[in-house]
Amino acid sequence: MRDLFTRELDQVGEDLVSMADHVATAIENATIALRTADLALAEAVIDGDNDIDDMERVLDQRCVDLLARQAPVAGDLRLVVTALRMSASIERMGDLARHVAQIARGRYPEGAVPADLAETFDRMGAAATQAARSMAELLRTRDLELAAQIEAADDVLDDLQRDTFRMTLTSTDGLGSQAVVDVTLLGRFYERFGDHAVSVARRVTYLVTGDPAGFTTEGYNDTGDAYR
Amino acid sequence: MRDLFTRELDQVGEDLVSMADHVATAIENATIALRTADLALAEAVIDGDNDIDDMERVLDQRCVDLLARQAPVAGDLRLVVTALRMSASIERMGDLARHVAQIARGRYPEGAVPADLAETFDRMGAAATQAARSMAELLRTRDLELAAQIEAADDVLDDLQRDTFRMTLTSTDGLGSQAVVDVTLLGRFYERFGDHAVSVARRVTYLVTGDPAGFTTEGYNDTGDAYR
Repeated sequence: MRDLFTRELDQVGEDLVSMADHVATAIENATIALRTADLALAEAVIDGDNDIDDMERVLDQRCVDLLARQAPVAGDLRLVVTALRMSASIERMGDLARHVAQIARGRYPEGAVPADLAETFDRMGAAATQAARSMAELLRTRDLELAAQIEAADDVLDDLQRDTFRMTLTSTDGLGSQAVVDVTLLGRFYERFGDHAVSVARRVTYLVTGDPAGFTTEGYNDTGDAYR
Repeated sequence: MRDLFTRELDQVGEDLVSMADHVATAIENATIALRTADLALAEAVIDGDNDIDDMERVLDQRCVDLLARQAPVAGDLRLVVTALRMSASIERMGDLARHVAQIARGRYPEGAVPADLAETFDRMGAAATQAARSMAELLRTRDLELAAQIEAADDVLDDLQRDTFRMTLTSTDGLGSQAVVDVTLLGRFYERFGDHAVSVARRVTYLVTGDPAGFTTEGYNDTGDAYR
């Protein structure tokens, strides 16, 4: 019975890693679609989000079944409950990648990103992709060095979001309102993507160290309130 | 033992209602602070979000304790797991009300909402407040008529968000970039607030009817992709 439980827990872990791999690819491709006005790639990201949603449903059902059949306590219980929460965060990261792709699609054949913000969004895409790849690796290895890298990538995203605000206010390109709306939403989506990666990183850290210090529900929250 | 379990489940339900009451008041006051540039009220909403976060922590711990000590199955298990998820949604609604208040504070003593969008945001605030009040009442009574009202309020919020996009593009007031950024973020916050209320409504509906039809993880997601 215990072996079965362990195998099922392992499966939950593998499902989380697989979801994390999917959202890393999603945000990477969404960024390419955004920056190159690649309609087909944008559509692929949008369609692919259904797969991530399906993975969450399967994982959540597996967790609820585990709770019902195995009635875990202590560390095992914490593991299952935490997996349920992490799956919600990762699913949401998939949604945010989809939103980026939707804006790319909505502006096609134009690009949604003004020329003088191109580099900023390249960097946002790179930081978000790195956060998601580190998250997948953290879930796989539990190497907490990766958690620190995710926090650092999130700080980069927060700074870049602040840059987008400043640049929309000072751009000499004469940005139209549509561009300002798009840039504001895109910045928000990348920033939230990073927040969710941090939430997952803090939950894994808590599982590994047993120390809730520094992990409050702020892990869910906007870790960088750039519009404060 | 069973009586104790029932009492503890009742307490979880009361905690959820109390959280819902708090976020309803938070979004109502955030809207007033936003529309009247009331700094003290904005600060009160921002500070008050800590209380909502604390309530979530207490409620979540209660749920995990229940799982550990009572090992519920079937409907009782679903109830506890669903409560964990609903508390996350309601906590997030508190964050979004806080974000509205933060924008009000950031623009003080100016108002953040341009004159020709004042009515739109009054209506967003009213719809969001109504959704949250209906959510509290739904959690209290499980009257599914209230779930329908929440879905309707969310539809109103989605429509109003679309209005904000259209108005930022067509305003003859010559909106500056700061106003466009603020309006875009504010519209997003209210729209997401409605999404989370819908998520809770669908979870309660599922608990009452046992019918997952129409409830997928889309309940978590943006139900209205106005920027699609």
